[in-house]
Amino acid sequence: MGKNQINVALLGLGRIGQMHAENLINHKSFKLKYTFDISKKLAKNISSKFNTIDIGNPEKAFKDKNIDLKKVVFCEKPLDLNIDKVNKCSKEIKKYKPKIQLGFNRRYDPGHSSIKQELRKGKIGKLEKIIITSRDPAPPSLNYLKVSGGIFKDMMIHDFDLLRFYLEKDEIENIFTTASNISDKRFDKIKDYELASCLLKSKQGVQCIITNSRHCSFGYDQRVELFGSKGMLISGNKSENETEIFTKNNTSQKKPLLNFFIDRYVDAYRLQLDELALYSRKKKSPISSFEDGRRALIIANAASQSLKQRKQIKIKF
Amino acid sequence: MGKNQINVALLGLGRIGQMHAENLINHKSFKLKYTFDISKKLAKNISSKFNTIDIGNPEKAFKDKNIDLKKVVFCEKPLDLNIDKVNKCSKEIKKYKPKIQLGFNRRYDPGHSSIKQELRKGKIGKLEKIIITSRDPAPPSLNYLKVSGGIFKDMMIHDFDLLRFYLEKDEIENIFTTASNISDKRFDKIKDYELASCLLKSKQGVQCIITNSRHCSFGYDQRVELFGSKGMLISGNKSENETEIFTKNNTSQKKPLLNFFIDRYVDAYRLQLDELALYSRKKKSPISSFEDGRRALIIANAASQSLKQRKQIKIKF
Amino acid sequence: MGKNQINVALLGLGRIGQMHAENLINHKSFKLKYTFDISKKLAKNISSKFNTIDIGNPEKAFKDKNIDLKKVVFCEKPLDLNIDKVNKCSKEIKKYKPKIQLGFNRRYDPGHSSIKQELRKGKIGKLEKIIITSRDPAPPSLNYLKVSGGIFKDMMIHDFDLLRFYLEKDEIENIFTTASNISDKRFDKIKDYELASCLLKSKQGVQCIITNSRHCSFGYDQRVELFGSKGMLISGNKSENETEIFTKNNTSQKKPLLNFFIDRYVDAYRLQLDELALYSRKKKSPISSFEDGRRALIIANAASQSLKQRKQIKIKF
Amino acid sequence: MGKNQINVALLGLGRIGQMHAENLINHKSFKLKYTFDISKKLAKNISSKFNTIDIGNPEKAFKDKNIDLKKVVFCEKPLDLNIDKVNKCSKEIKKYKPKIQLGFNRRYDPGHSSIKQELRKGKIGKLEKIIITSRDPAPPSLNYLKVSGGIFKDMMIHDFDLLRFYLEKDEIENIFTTASNISDKRFDKIKDYELASCLLKSKQGVQCIITNSRHCSFGYDQRVELFGSKGMLISGNKSENETEIFTKNNTSQKKPLLNFFIDRYVDAYRLQLDELALYSRKKKSPISSFEDGRRALIIANAASQSLKQRKQIKIKF
Repeated sequence: MGKNQINVALLGLGRIGQMHAENLINHKSFKLKYTFDISKKLAKNISSKFNTIDIGNPEKAFKDKNIDLKKVVFCEKPLDLNIDKVNKCSKEIKKYKPKIQLGFNRRYDPGHSSIKQELRKGKIGKLEKIIITSRDPAPPSLNYLKVSGGIFKDMMIHDFDLLRFYLEKDEIENIFTTASNISDKRFDKIKDYELASCLLKSKQGVQCIITNSRHCSFGYDQRVELFGSKGMLISGNKSENETEIFTKNNTSQKKPLLNFFIDRYVDAYRLQLDELALYSRKKKSPISSFEDGRRALIIANAASQSLKQRKQIKIKF
Repeated sequence: MGKNQINVALLGLGRIGQMHAENLINHKSFKLKYTFDISKKLAKNISSKFNTIDIGNPEKAFKDKNIDLKKVVFCEKPLDLNIDKVNKCSKEIKKYKPKIQLGFNRRYDPGHSSIKQELRKGKIGKLEKIIITSRDPAPPSLNYLKVSGGIFKDMMIHDFDLLRFYLEKDEIENIFTTASNISDKRFDKIKDYELASCLLKSKQGVQCIITNSRHCSFGYDQRVELFGSKGMLISGNKSENETEIFTKNNTSQKKPLLNFFIDRYVDAYRLQLDELALYSRKKKSPISSFEDGRRALIIANAASQSLKQRKQIKIKF
Repeated sequence: MGKNQINVALLGLGRIGQMHAENLINHKSFKLKYTFDISKKLAKNISSKFNTIDIGNPEKAFKDKNIDLKKVVFCEKPLDLNIDKVNKCSKEIKKYKPKIQLGFNRRYDPGHSSIKQELRKGKIGKLEKIIITSRDPAPPSLNYLKVSGGIFKDMMIHDFDLLRFYLEKDEIENIFTTASNISDKRFDKIKDYELASCLLKSKQGVQCIITNSRHCSFGYDQRVELFGSKGMLISGNKSENETEIFTKNNTSQKKPLLNFFIDRYVDAYRLQLDELALYSRKKKSPISSFEDGRRALIIANAASQSLKQRKQIKIKF
Repeated sequence: MGKNQINVALLGLGRIGQMHAENLINHKSFKLKYTFDISKKLAKNISSKFNTIDIGNPEKAFKDKNIDLKKVVFCEKPLDLNIDKVNKCSKEIKKYKPKIQLGFNRRYDPGHSSIKQELRKGKIGKLEKIIITSRDPAPPSLNYLKVSGGIFKDMMIHDFDLLRFYLEKDEIENIFTTASNISDKRFDKIKDYELASCLLKSKQGVQCIITNSRHCSFGYDQRVELFGSKGMLISGNKSENETEIFTKNNTSQKKPLLNFFIDRYVDAYRLQLDELALYSRKKKSPISSFEDGRRALIIANAASQSLKQRKQIKIKF
């Protein structure tokens, strides 16, 4: 440990940023050298927490918000809430042949990626349906929700990407969306939704269903079902432990699901950093790219459009 | 046994009719007295199989296709493939205050109806989503498919009814549909679909998802998921037996699912006849009525319309 | 139905006898013609319940308690609580080449017998361990318990037989037993046990474990585990239905187990009668014989002996 | 990190020792300062693997094999294969009031310890049975087996301790053992066993069953079942991931179990070190003590004795 570590500068120290900070510190291949956040308070907090971090002068290093594109960049999704900005950025950086790994963590989950391997091996024949259930244990704060970009760009974007992960070259062709608020009427005020469902179709006719909820009493519900001409693959939830209780009125009562992404996707985040290290050392291309982020955002925009127009929207990448 | 049995005339001796014949013969409360089928061959076959059945002269008894409405009528769905005929019939028979029990068998399934009881008891708070998976083990013959009315009227009609069973007074408001053929291209020729998915919304905003397939390699896949503000209820599949195999490469391998409706819904068919006996004896109203059949058919028509117009269709009952 | 039915006389109308009466009446191949019970009250009750039964004069037919051995006999286990009487009977009837099917119902259970087929097919290689869990939902009445013969002859005898069912030609060689009363001290008074466990070994070295309890808060717990050099087979419990509840504190909560043998083993009792019909028509030998009953009783006696002597007892058949 | 770390000297660098070395290095609270092994080759290997370890002069520090008992000692079980040596040591060190944490890792497993909490809360009423299944994926090398002390001292000792973990003050009173070799006859040559089963009883009458195998085709089988007057608790196996495969002939096929202790008990080993850190800082007493190791060894000796004498052996601590 220590020798040949990759120096990292971390920009952004929000909820996810702090998790990345911790993961980077604990990862053998990385040395977290710089951190930066627009909020000086956050930067200060984080610096007191991790006393080995040398908060340097990242503003200088990344002036004009331009990243030195000789570096490998790890970028949390979404790239931006505005697709025009993303497209403009995409054009501008093209000449640099940028090295960017995108933070779609679910692609790295051992369960979710295991069923992709089985699919590729032909275990279920031709893929015909993808059904993704994705429910957060509880909604974020109203303050966060107001600037989140809405359920499609903030939450379902992960599921759009996961569909594309399984579909590979068979791209999403169209989408229809429905959404509503039933239990938590605060969402009405900010013109957002706690509940949303989508029906998408790929060019080859694969029918894709996504069902999202901003709350879930029994934990972080994260399931994928791949249905094919010769079988079905399921990637299920993870629980606190593997115990069961049998009593007078019930049997096989299991423990609550792991509560949220930091616990549920702990392996995925680790494997993501493993890949980043390999990418930095030019040994592997990332399975989650800038273009994956751009396309997921385009689908999210089409989702909003479908909701307004109450009809199927054709996707144009 | 024998005393006070209810005499039954059975009209129609196709696949389902023959199953009803057998169930009626084995049920303590009924005496299958007459059977009839347009196809004389079917009538002959059935009469040789069940030698206690006295094939009388049902044509006379039910002339002009009018049912003597002092009798209790058990009617398999759909009432007719043409909603206009159904509506006309509905008006005509109104004055007779007809006693009709409809054959939506899934309402009687112990699992599916058990989660409705839990829902009513408030176990999962407010209902927010209903997700129904319904896949047949193999498609029927092409000859049958040609006259079936298509996947929405022939197959998904059961799922539309099951949604209404859980929604109770909160009626379905709109529907969006997608469909495709991937593995079995014969469906293209008859302008029907092997795969279909729907997204429906109730007046209260409950989001409903139905996913259908005319084939399913691992058996008859019949699942219901009710998601609410305080929990989730699942009614799952039934297997041949409760055994598991553990070997070098796999663990907890279970037996195939019960293959089709006669096995999977054996209890439901029995409970349906139990209710028919009670209804005949004026002790209970049926949980599946003529109007339920009419409404399911209206939703099925809207499903076809949505598919053509690629947009959400508002339901008008 | 009706033609070629097999006439049956049923002797004994206790709890199990009444169940057999009902099963025989509902089975197509049988006509329950005579019933008899030492208790006239029981005979009267049963005759009023099943008004088609002609209670004849069975005493005459079966005088001197000798069964006319040209007939096929179905006999509930145990043959008798006293092994000497059983052995004597065995010798006496030998010359008649008796046709006796024994009522070890578990051998006919689709799950339990399915894993025997897998074992025979070599799915788990060489058999090394058999682990049987058998727990009744609640103890019978104290009056019954007093004359039951004790937990080994009355309850565990089924498990001894089930071991022999899987072991086939590899006979049980020795047994060690432990027993105790913890929650229900009434068992102490009648010198019987609510809890017992056994460790048996076959001639080939297969280690067998049986764990019994006279109570089980979550229902009728009936499990078999076969462990072999290449895998494991499990035959599990059956529940009321296949539903699951997910709430704030628990996930995948299932329904209680089917409560007792009449429900749990309904298929087994039917298949047992199917075999009896085939046996009567000379088409099949029964998988459960007089000798199986005798040997299970010998093991039960050795179990009691082991408990007293606190050591392993060698079995002599 | 870095400040206030606890300096550790690690003695013994075999299979388990190397795992502890790695765990200590990755643990925030510890600094692995010295390692030692009788085999200089092992010491050299380890020193090249972990280049931050300063292999000092531990022989001096621990001369005469006496541990400076002002230190906190973490000791893998068994303390020694010879109970007389253990007893002698126990007496000698008594005056030092030694601080020793024993390495019974299963006590720290989140699943196994979770059901102990439920038991304590009274979830299943009075404890009546404990059933432990413990099977290794494959036997160790014959060389290791020859010096292992046999299946009871080397393998089942963990299960004896786990029984005592659940029984708490209700100590084991007697034991009966059976053992055999079926598939792997090499065990005969070294007078050891690949398969063993035990039946133990506690002072309060709790019946305990342990079933061990040195091989298990489907992975590391580690299950605990606690049966009580009001319910049952199960701590089950852990799989590679939470995926399921459904195909033509099988449903719900799951992934193999985590293969062996380093993976299966990764959390337990971490929690064990967490406790060691707290113990070193005088904030907590360990849940696994020197005396626990001594008693488990006494039960293991009784197990061998029972096997030879074919009878129940009374335990004397």
